Amino acid sequence: MKKASFEVLAQDSNARVGQLFTAHGTIQTPSFVPVGTLGTVKALSSADLLKTGIQAIIANTYHLHLQPGEKIIEEMGGLHGFINWKGPIITDSGGFQVFSLGAAKEHGVGKIASIFPGTYSGGHSYSNKGKPLINVEEEGVEFISHLDGSKHRFTPERVIEIEKKLGADIILPLDECTSPLHDYDYTMEAMNRTHRWALRALNQFHKFPSEGQALLGIVQGGEYKDLREQSSDFISKQGFDGYAIGGSLGRSKDDMHRILEWTVPLLPQDKTRHLLGIGEIEDIFEIVKRGIDLFDCVFPTKMAHTGTFLTKEAKRFRIHIINSRFKNDSYPIEINCNCYTCQNYSKAYLRQAFLNKEPFAITLAVMHNLYFLESLMHRIRDAIKKGQLSELAKHWLSLTLI
Amino acid sequence: MKKASFEVLAQDSNARVGQLFTAHGTIQTPSFVPVGTLGTVKALSSADLLKTGIQAIIANTYHLHLQPGEKIIEEMGGLHGFINWKGPIITDSGGFQVFSLGAAKEHGVGKIASIFPGTYSGGHSYSNKGKPLINVEEEGVEFISHLDGSKHRFTPERVIEIEKKLGADIILPLDECTSPLHDYDYTMEAMNRTHRWALRALNQFHKFPSEGQALLGIVQGGEYKDLREQSSDFISKQGFDGYAIGGSLGRSKDDMHRILEWTVPLLPQDKTRHLLGIGEIEDIFEIVKRGIDLFDCVFPTKMAHTGTFLTKEAKRFRIHIINSRFKNDSYPIEINCNCYTCQNYSKAYLRQAFLNKEPFAITLAVMHNLYFLESLMHRIRDAIKKGQLSELAKHWLSLTLI
Repeated sequence: MKKASFEVLAQDSNARVGQLFTAHGTIQTPSFVPVGTLGTVKALSSADLLKTGIQAIIANTYHLHLQPGEKIIEEMGGLHGFINWKGPIITDSGGFQVFSLGAAKEHGVGKIASIFPGTYSGGHSYSNKGKPLINVEEEGVEFISHLDGSKHRFTPERVIEIEKKLGADIILPLDECTSPLHDYDYTMEAMNRTHRWALRALNQFHKFPSEGQALLGIVQGGEYKDLREQSSDFISKQGFDGYAIGGSLGRSKDDMHRILEWTVPLLPQDKTRHLLGIGEIEDIFEIVKRGIDLFDCVFPTKMAHTGTFLTKEAKRFRIHIINSRFKNDSYPIEINCNCYTCQNYSKAYLRQAFLNKEPFAITLAVMHNLYFLESLMHRIRDAIKKGQLSELAKHWLSLTLI
Repeated sequence: MKKASFEVLAQDSNARVGQLFTAHGTIQTPSFVPVGTLGTVKALSSADLLKTGIQAIIANTYHLHLQPGEKIIEEMGGLHGFINWKGPIITDSGGFQVFSLGAAKEHGVGKIASIFPGTYSGGHSYSNKGKPLINVEEEGVEFISHLDGSKHRFTPERVIEIEKKLGADIILPLDECTSPLHDYDYTMEAMNRTHRWALRALNQFHKFPSEGQALLGIVQGGEYKDLREQSSDFISKQGFDGYAIGGSLGRSKDDMHRILEWTVPLLPQDKTRHLLGIGEIEDIFEIVKRGIDLFDCVFPTKMAHTGTFLTKEAKRFRIHIINSRFKNDSYPIEINCNCYTCQNYSKAYLRQAFLNKEPFAITLAVMHNLYFLESLMHRIRDAIKKGQLSELAKHWLSLTLI
C-alpha cells in the first residue's frame, strides 16, 4: 500500500496540479474534500457520493470517538468498512473541536474573525453556561463531551491511537487551533505546545507503524507572520508525509491570503498541502493560486440542507430553491450540469420537495453541490495545466458581481 | 398503451396471482403499493425505489392539487415526468382527505376504529379549532386547505380533470370515506352519494378519453353487510376498469376480514381489486387470502422515519434501531437480506446514523422496509402458485408471537 506519496504534474505560478497516492486510490489535486463529520457525508450513500465525482472525504476523530467509539469502528473493518466508502479518507484530529469548545466559545468567533461566528456545529449540544468546555495542558486536553457532559482526555498519543483504529488513509495530529482574537503571546505559547505535541504524535505514529497510513504535520501561528514562518519551518523539518495549515486565519479574507503567502512557500514542494476548513467558491481560486492542494469545508453540504443550490448563474453562486420564482420552473438547477439531480429533476420539483421537508430533497441538493464543486475543481486543474488559471479565476469572480 | 387489463394466473382458494398491465409496465399481483403522497416515496430517489423491487406507487390527488398544483405537473410531462418515475402510478382521489378533514377529526378515529387514531398525516397543519374543515354536499366537497386555510371545491368531475392532468396509470374517483363511528343511516346516505359521484366521474372520464388511463370504482358501505353488498353490486355493474374497497373497515381487524368476505366475492373475477390504506405484515396474509390484489399503506415508510426496521426475526416483525443493544452489532438488519441497506451497512452504523438524525439513515430504512415487503409479496405469489399460502401464513404469523 502506498502512503500518501505526492507528485506534482503541472504548475501555473504557485498553483499546481498533482496526484496524491493513498492506500484507497489516487486523489487528483487541487481537490475539494467534503466533510463527513461522523463518517457519512450528510444525506448521501457511498453510491450517491461516487456519482458526484468526489475523490475523498474527511471525517472527525473527536466526533467518532464520542460516538460510536473507535473500538466498534475498528471491529467493523475501520472507517472504510463502517461507512462503506472504498475511496480515500482523511481524519481530522479534534484540534478544531478543542477550538470550538474552548476559545471560540469564549471569543464568539470562527476561523476568520469577521466572516463566520464560532458556533459549535455538532448536531447536539451540551451547554456549560457559556464557560469553555475545555482545559488545555502540556500533557493534552481535557474536555467535556458536547453530547452528554461526560469528561474526556485527548493526548497527542491517544489521538494517534484512536486514528489508527479508525484506519483513515491520511490522519492529522492533535493541535491547538487558536482564535483570531488570541494575542501574540498566547498564540506563540499554543504554537509551541502544538509543535511539542506534533513530535509526540510522530513518535507514537512510528512506534506502531500502520501500513498505508500517512500523518500530516499542522502549521499554526495565527495571524502573525513570524510565528507562521517559525511554525512552517519547524513542522517542515519533522518528516511528516504532508502538511496542513490550521488555526486562526486572521480577521478577513485578505489576512487569510497573506497567511498563505507567508506559509506555503516554506513548505516542501514535494509534499501535499491541506488547508483546513476553508472552501467557499470565492476562496477556492485564491487558495489554489497560493499553492494549496487539498481543502475541506462544510459549506456545500450545509447549504444543501436549507435548499441552497450552487450555480454559476447567480449572485455568490447560489440560489435558494424555496423562492417562489421557481414555482413553475421546469428547468434543472443548471441546464448543462450532468449531475444526477440536474439530469432528473426540475427546479419546481426540488422546490416542492423542500417545501415538504422531504429528506431526499437534501440528498439531491448535496449531490448537485458536490458535483458542482468537483466539476469546478476539474476545470481548475485543466486551467493550471494550460497556464490559464488567472483567466479562469477572473471569469468566475466576475460572475459573482452580477 | 394498455389500460389496466388484468389477468389471473393462479388461484389458491380465494387468493390469486395475477398480472395488471398498465401503460407504464406490468404489476405482478398481489402487490404492495407504497405511498408517495406528494409523488415521492419519502426519502427515496426513483433509482433507489427501483432497487427495492417496488412495482408501482400511489400518490394523492388532494395533496398534489394543493401543492404544486396539477397545472405545473402537467407542463412537466405529468407525474411520471415530474417525479421521474417510469413505472406504474396510481392516484388516490382525495376521498380519504374528505374523511381526514371531516369525520375523522370529529370522531377521533381512523379506518378501523380500534386500531389507529384519525390523525391527519400531512406535513403541515392548518387548525380550525377542532371543527371539521369540510362540507359535503350533493354537488361535491368544499374544504379548507390544511396548508394555508384557503377554500377549495372538489366535484367528481373536477377530480377526474385533475387526475387526467396528473396522468397516473390508474385513477380513483371522488368518494366519501365514512368513519367507523357513523351510524347506518349516514353510512347509507354517504354510500348512495358516492355511487352518484361514481357515475358522474365515469361520465367525465369517458367524455375526454385519456389513452392508457384506467378508472377504478370504489365500494363503500362501512361495516354494514347489506350496504357493502349493495355497493359491491352497484359499482360492479358500471364498467369500471377495476375496483377498490374504501371507507370504514369496522371496529377491529375481525370486522375488516368480514367486510372483505362480504365484498370481494361480489366483484368481477377478471378485474383487479385494491384495498385502500391497509397493509401491516399481519394484515397482508389476511387480505390476500380474501382475494385482494393490490393494497397501499404508509406504515413501512412511516416506521422507517423513526428508525423502525422490518425483520422476520422480531416480535411484530420490527426492531427499533436506536435500542442500545445494537450499539456493537456488526451484522445487517437481516443476514440474508439482499437489499442495499443490508448488503452495505451494519446495525451499529444504522443506529449511529439515526442517533445523529442523518437524513440518509431514513433512506436506508425505507429501502430496507420496502425491499422486505416486496420480498414477502414475492414469496406470497410463489406460495399461491404452489397452493401453499395457508402454510406460509401459518409460519409467518407464528413468528409474531415470539
